[in-house]
Amino acid sequence: MGAAALFGSAASAQPPSVPPGMQWLYGSGEGGATSIQAYHAFRNYVLAAAGHRPRYSVVFAPNATLAAPRFLPCGRRPLAVVLDVDETALQNLGFEYDDATHPGRAYDQQRWNDWERTGADAVLPIPGAVTALNDIRRAGVTVIFNTNRLAAQAAANEATLNNIGLGPVRHGSTLWLQGDVASGSAKDPRRAAISARYCVVAMAGDQLGDFTDLFNARTLGVAERRRAAISGPLANLWGNGWFVLANPVYGSGLRGNVDDVFPADRRWPAPGGAR
Amino acid sequence: MGAAALFGSAASAQPPSVPPGMQWLYGSGEGGATSIQAYHAFRNYVLAAAGHRPRYSVVFAPNATLAAPRFLPCGRRPLAVVLDVDETALQNLGFEYDDATHPGRAYDQQRWNDWERTGADAVLPIPGAVTALNDIRRAGVTVIFNTNRLAAQAAANEATLNNIGLGPVRHGSTLWLQGDVASGSAKDPRRAAISARYCVVAMAGDQLGDFTDLFNARTLGVAERRRAAISGPLANLWGNGWFVLANPVYGSGLRGNVDDVFPADRRWPAPGGAR
Repeated sequence: MGAAALFGSAASAQPPSVPPGMQWLYGSGEGGATSIQAYHAFRNYVLAAAGHRPRYSVVFAPNATLAAPRFLPCGRRPLAVVLDVDETALQNLGFEYDDATHPGRAYDQQRWNDWERTGADAVLPIPGAVTALNDIRRAGVTVIFNTNRLAAQAAANEATLNNIGLGPVRHGSTLWLQGDVASGSAKDPRRAAISARYCVVAMAGDQLGDFTDLFNARTLGVAERRRAAISGPLANLWGNGWFVLANPVYGSGLRGNVDDVFPADRRWPAPGGAR
Repeated sequence: MGAAALFGSAASAQPPSVPPGMQWLYGSGEGGATSIQAYHAFRNYVLAAAGHRPRYSVVFAPNATLAAPRFLPCGRRPLAVVLDVDETALQNLGFEYDDATHPGRAYDQQRWNDWERTGADAVLPIPGAVTALNDIRRAGVTVIFNTNRLAAQAAANEATLNNIGLGPVRHGSTLWLQGDVASGSAKDPRRAAISARYCVVAMAGDQLGDFTDLFNARTLGVAERRRAAISGPLANLWGNGWFVLANPVYGSGLRGNVDDVFPADRRWPAPGGAR
């Protein structure tokens, strides 16, 4: 065996590296602590809301805008919470492992569909979710999932959630999937259908579209979208009705070039400045 | 001008891309919402603690271990909170912009030191921090920063925090820097010095070492460290005395190969399985 073959063999015996976002989200104590903290706040908020019955839902009314939010009235409807599934309640460990071990491969919708059907044994609940959701159910608040997993694979998706202790969920009542109300990934039509039956006291998601589809408007630039979320009238909702789970691995938060991401007046070294 | 030169010119006119972790943390609504949510929970927790005066600090006692946590008694000391600075209270936008525009360059301690001295105009408070810290101060709780920025550059670091509204801070009382108590980056000696004067009711940081140096033990593997943080007796502290800010850009959460990050029993496609 030549030296090159020996070297090649040693190199392939080393487990592959992992993108930083995955290291943080799936492998670190910091990432796990962040989700426990989010679910801690979510649970506390919902238990308090269950005690005082809010007049308004946290779901946008049809005439709401990001600049002028308005919320659906609750009426006498029973209380519910609405959560996204992927990287909000459940970590797609097997799928992301497969991705990490095939660097550079493009996203493939068919592979994701296969994953929905066959991946039930390769997921885990996100840290903190099971305890919080059980406490919320015990307080008499219905736990509902609104996800872009496919209605065409409803049985598999229902089983995945139930198998890892995030249920009980049932398709059509506590599990809403892509294709249930309208085609496509917009979640507002499903939020409207859920709101016809329930007063939604809190929502959780890892993407801004888990709260309102208005954040997904194509005209909204990266910096403008951040501003709308954190410095306008919506800023006070985070941790206070709307609960976000950190996801630096995929999704609508991973956009922008240096001019989008870094404010022009916060650059260093300062142009022409002493250093 | 030849075609190659034209192409080169067009390519360099395109702003450089940004690593996903920076896009999420500095550029996205999701990242900003996550920090508002964390500070919302931090503020609520501290205001409640200020009302009932806890018997125990959230700082580990000298005989504590990760498996058997013990906390310092409060006595009659006045209440304080202790926070890290970088990517906990303040976003290093200028430094990270400089990093993003020099991909592949190694970390350089001298460049960081230059940044501490000259970067004051190129930072921003992390979303949510200023409001929360002002509310905490108004409740009579002292806000103290414990950071590995350098005591040798105390005046610049003090000015940086005060200039962006995170203060008032004063070196030696409400600002503790690397070199103040002992040399090196360990924060336990400074936490002990702060605890001699205050009952610490809450801590905030983006690294597990912002809570106890025990998380930085060299013998602690990636998966073991995550387990210690999220499934042992410490799990209930997140959002409940210990508050974590998401940082997928740098630090102790960004470690591990695929075998460290992904549990062996959560792989897909399943070996030999149908797909």
